[in-house]
Amino acid sequence: MSLSAKQAFVARNEEKNAEVAAILSEKFGDRCSQSMSVREQHGHTTTWLPNQAPDAVVFAETTEEVAEIVRICAEHKVPVIPFGAGSSLEGHLNAPGGGICIDLSRMSSILEVSEADLDCRVQAGVTRKQLNSYLRDSGLFFPIDPGADASIGGMASTRASGTNAVRYGTMKDVILGLTVVTPSGEIIHTGGRARKSSAGYDLTRLYIGSEGTLGIITEITLKLFGQPEAISGGICSFPTVQAACDAVIMTIQCGLPVARIEFLDPLQVKACNIYSKLDMAEEPTLLLEFHGSEAGVKEQAEMFGSIASEYGGSEFKWATKAEDRTVLWQARHDSYWASFTLRPGAKGVATDVCVPISRLAECVTATREDLDEAGLLATIVGHVGDGNFHVLVLVDDDNASEIEAAEDFVGRLNARAIEMGGTCTGEHGVGQGKMKYLPVEHGGGVDVMRSIKKAMDPDNIMNPGKIFTLN
Amino acid sequence: MSLSAKQAFVARNEEKNAEVAAILSEKFGDRCSQSMSVREQHGHTTTWLPNQAPDAVVFAETTEEVAEIVRICAEHKVPVIPFGAGSSLEGHLNAPGGGICIDLSRMSSILEVSEADLDCRVQAGVTRKQLNSYLRDSGLFFPIDPGADASIGGMASTRASGTNAVRYGTMKDVILGLTVVTPSGEIIHTGGRARKSSAGYDLTRLYIGSEGTLGIITEITLKLFGQPEAISGGICSFPTVQAACDAVIMTIQCGLPVARIEFLDPLQVKACNIYSKLDMAEEPTLLLEFHGSEAGVKEQAEMFGSIASEYGGSEFKWATKAEDRTVLWQARHDSYWASFTLRPGAKGVATDVCVPISRLAECVTATREDLDEAGLLATIVGHVGDGNFHVLVLVDDDNASEIEAAEDFVGRLNARAIEMGGTCTGEHGVGQGKMKYLPVEHGGGVDVMRSIKKAMDPDNIMNPGKIFTLN
Repeated sequence: MSLSAKQAFVARNEEKNAEVAAILSEKFGDRCSQSMSVREQHGHTTTWLPNQAPDAVVFAETTEEVAEIVRICAEHKVPVIPFGAGSSLEGHLNAPGGGICIDLSRMSSILEVSEADLDCRVQAGVTRKQLNSYLRDSGLFFPIDPGADASIGGMASTRASGTNAVRYGTMKDVILGLTVVTPSGEIIHTGGRARKSSAGYDLTRLYIGSEGTLGIITEITLKLFGQPEAISGGICSFPTVQAACDAVIMTIQCGLPVARIEFLDPLQVKACNIYSKLDMAEEPTLLLEFHGSEAGVKEQAEMFGSIASEYGGSEFKWATKAEDRTVLWQARHDSYWASFTLRPGAKGVATDVCVPISRLAECVTATREDLDEAGLLATIVGHVGDGNFHVLVLVDDDNASEIEAAEDFVGRLNARAIEMGGTCTGEHGVGQGKMKYLPVEHGGGVDVMRSIKKAMDPDNIMNPGKIFTLN
Repeated sequence: MSLSAKQAFVARNEEKNAEVAAILSEKFGDRCSQSMSVREQHGHTTTWLPNQAPDAVVFAETTEEVAEIVRICAEHKVPVIPFGAGSSLEGHLNAPGGGICIDLSRMSSILEVSEADLDCRVQAGVTRKQLNSYLRDSGLFFPIDPGADASIGGMASTRASGTNAVRYGTMKDVILGLTVVTPSGEIIHTGGRARKSSAGYDLTRLYIGSEGTLGIITEITLKLFGQPEAISGGICSFPTVQAACDAVIMTIQCGLPVARIEFLDPLQVKACNIYSKLDMAEEPTLLLEFHGSEAGVKEQAEMFGSIASEYGGSEFKWATKAEDRTVLWQARHDSYWASFTLRPGAKGVATDVCVPISRLAECVTATREDLDEAGLLATIVGHVGDGNFHVLVLVDDDNASEIEAAEDFVGRLNARAIEMGGTCTGEHGVGQGKMKYLPVEHGGGVDVMRSIKKAMDPDNIMNPGKIFTLN
């Protein structure tokens, strides 16, 4: 297996890795797997980066067990990679230096729900769908929705967001506190249950988005929200990307508290039509959802309708019936898989950037032109209320020059977003895939990140070879 | 001047401090002051902790000047304390080891406003009122309102919030990016203008609330919000604290997007009546404000009215007229000063805690009983939508046993809040006044904070003696 240009080198100590795998196998019995299929499955999953398997996978069941595993790894200076649902996209789960993957999926207990305080505490392996099923009868819900049924721990680690972020924020906004196993195997608690605090450094938000490089998140205290009294949604197509984006800007400027406002480019609409058997117009399209009181969502939908018509949008078709909305949003959530109908058997190079919304139309338009010039087939879909969009490039995995062209495109896309005051990733994270863009975006800030990493994890055992190199 | 039990010892090197003061005096001329009155004024202002003046105060005008001053201090290992408007409350600005205070108040330029992106970039010395005056005609506003006309840099440094936080969040939620001078005098930029990012460690939120101990914030990129189409507000009194808090909980649970929901205890109402010449009922009282469309605020006010009556509240008197609202909110903002009418000539010991709202009534009630038992005169006022409340104990500055009783009370209040899952400070910060409570709240997390501080500021020159001791 060859090392991609995007995968940083991490020294591998076969002997120590094997020694620790043996100790853990002894201790955890059949909860410690060294089978190649399990190891590879835990290396990477949805990513297009070459697989780098850990030496063993341990299925932990408690915070104390995680701490015990980390202490053993720390003693031997062996890498530790935490695993939730395996839905990350930038090689976060690869093990370039080998070592031990701690699978947290069995830590799936919902420990506490407080209806009075609108909060809950869950283990890291709880998935967002599991949490929402559990909450259904309480009148509460957890709004962060990255599409995949990711684990809450993984979503915290990558600072995930998704379709509802324009209204409810990202993981950094909904997490009140964490339980973390530090690189030396200590168990600490950050934050608390107070809605706000000025008590010391914000360790909670330092761990959120640190991608397992500073410690392993084992429990999360989350804000919850009341299920809206009424929900309505709808769809509207526009003559140009510019017109669709202008409608988005106006919607945000007017303070319309839209819960979701998603963009699909014409090719993405085509793919969704095929995959989900729909007949949406193959134009730049916005899907929307409004949450509020009965009167409130009606008012919001009407306001959006008049904004849309101002920018040449089609008649805004709105769906108050849950079934109709479900069809639309299922199609949106399936858009990743739908894209592959355009090139069956292709591999996907998924990437995301985020720009100030005033630059969104320009960025999306330039990106489409860039793709066309490079001869790449790709769909574009976006959480445009935040200025965040995704490109899924469909490549032939066996064609090195196609993969290289896709990688080059990703480089240009990132440079474009950063130049516009944006970021090289709105929600996927850095992992291995975006390491080289981080210094372009953050300059000397990366040195500060490095100094924090070195102080908190002096032996560099926590998910090494991710986010930035240490030198 | 004696060292309070709450003021950590910081070694003072008179010779080096004097040497650096001389260098800066030479370089900055009359923008470097060594007069005792200026130095003491920059030590502490509103706090009750003993004054510890810096050796010199330099009035910086640019980020580059701040960097230059920091480099000189770093070379000589002399303390640096940043100063904004001087409105902090926990001794944040004291100079226990002497050193150089950098006054940022002349860095008061609003550098950029983007109406399309609802954001702006300001220098650290811009105050919140200045920013809102500037924005008035744009249709935008900056919602964070801690009462005092604090500087944006100071508000970032203490993770401030205030009356609007229940709707618009705290400083951690509205800051997109920062320019920071590091302890070695480098200039770095964190975050950016994208609404969200997963690109590396969240340095922005690490600096927010770090109280100048990790670097000096010189520029801030802020989210702005559209001025609401309609605002209404009102007042409602309740038979008991419990009833008022229950009404708050129900309001939050119903998802009523209240913009402000403030509690005043009967003694605070009395003080406000005297100071602002009002005739509010001297009962547990809630002041509210709603933002939205005309129809929206009407709906919100009606919903609140019916919640209030369910909990035995008085008829909810609502004020849609701006003048009437201004009178109410001015009284609320003047509540700090109003409290002194209850004991003219007294000194105030101001403190704040924050608890999960389900524990709020219990915490406020126990706190009032505690004050009565301790024979302390104090007012209670709170941003109760967040579970955050303030106590202002009125003490005779010359009576050591009274001050001790107030300090003991603050200790019990913090223990009570932490025991309830809350925090020792919701918005004032730790400074010197709350250092001893931080380990009670965060346990081993404080060791992690220490390791970050040591890595980022190895010579401990940035605002030493604040938040935690280094050992």
